[in-house]
Amino acid sequence: MAPVSEPAVISDGRLLRGAKSRRAILRHAVDVASLEGLNGLSIGRLATDLGVSKSNVQTLFGTKENLQVATAEFAREAFVDAVLGPALAEPPGAPRLRALVDRWLDYVATPLFPGGCFWAANMPDFDSRPGPVRDTLVRHQRAWRDLLAAELRNAGHPDADLAAFQLDAVLTATNTALRLGDEEAVTKARRVMTQLVQ
Amino acid sequence: MAPVSEPAVISDGRLLRGAKSRRAILRHAVDVASLEGLNGLSIGRLATDLGVSKSNVQTLFGTKENLQVATAEFAREAFVDAVLGPALAEPPGAPRLRALVDRWLDYVATPLFPGGCFWAANMPDFDSRPGPVRDTLVRHQRAWRDLLAAELRNAGHPDADLAAFQLDAVLTATNTALRLGDEEAVTKARRVMTQLVQ
Repeated sequence: MAPVSEPAVISDGRLLRGAKSRRAILRHAVDVASLEGLNGLSIGRLATDLGVSKSNVQTLFGTKENLQVATAEFAREAFVDAVLGPALAEPPGAPRLRALVDRWLDYVATPLFPGGCFWAANMPDFDSRPGPVRDTLVRHQRAWRDLLAAELRNAGHPDADLAAFQLDAVLTATNTALRLGDEEAVTKARRVMTQLVQ
Repeated sequence: MAPVSEPAVISDGRLLRGAKSRRAILRHAVDVASLEGLNGLSIGRLATDLGVSKSNVQTLFGTKENLQVATAEFAREAFVDAVLGPALAEPPGAPRLRALVDRWLDYVATPLFPGGCFWAANMPDFDSRPGPVRDTLVRHQRAWRDLLAAELRNAGHPDADLAAFQLDAVLTATNTALRLGDEEAVTKARRVMTQLVQ
């Protein structure tokens, strides 16, 4: 005889399987979006790539837009783990700033996502398209730039907001240069950072 | 009786009409590509948008890739007319550099193309995709950065290549910021230029 609690157990199991499938789908979605952009994502395409049913992916994400937002949030989690987490272990100011820049350069040179920086790959496609995807990407970008500004301020920079704008711009340009095979850009980015944090 | 030369005249007329259609199609293609990227272009889409037959567009451009390259070259021509031409009328060094940056900021703020900087909109989609479209975009980007470096050198900057990398990075970031409604970025870009050309 089945215990009374079995439906709940099954439901938990389903939830768990759902959460695992969700992560597996998002892991692939982030890679696709870093190479081809969030517009290259579709529920049908992910289902085909991963050999699962379209209705399964549909149940987990609903709309293409929800899938795009979930993919951006998943990319942000991976970015926090790879870049912010380790750097925030360093003391505030110059040491943390150097760690942030070093980790960021690893993140685009190694790279964490096959197409390089996820935000650099996607912001240009969405900057002219208001909506939840753009809002999510902008929120992530602001959080990153605010963190750079805070650490530049901690490092004693007299104009931290301007310096953060410059540093972020140079890192983004370094990502593009690396995608084009120009390894020298990493050296240039480090030199700009050294100029900003003397 | 038709003169002997008539076929040649007709042929010239056709060539002229062909060249005019070509420009009309490319003018629209550049606008689409600045907003949605060169990947948003297709021969069928342009034919529908402009109410012409698909076979006409096909005859003029052949493949989607040829259409993309022709669109990028057309964007470059418009960029040269709007930014480089007027700035090159200024004396070399600091005056020309200031004119280049001013014209560039107008080009993305006014903007010349509805989606802002054509190369900022398209480079991230193509930086991971080797081929003639990427080669064309990279050639244009290098020509622009080399010009900045040459004028920084003329202005007496001791490390013109690094400064050109920085300046180009900041201008590209300014374009993104403007698309997101952040007008302050223009002031930041001008301040970075002033720091670089003292």
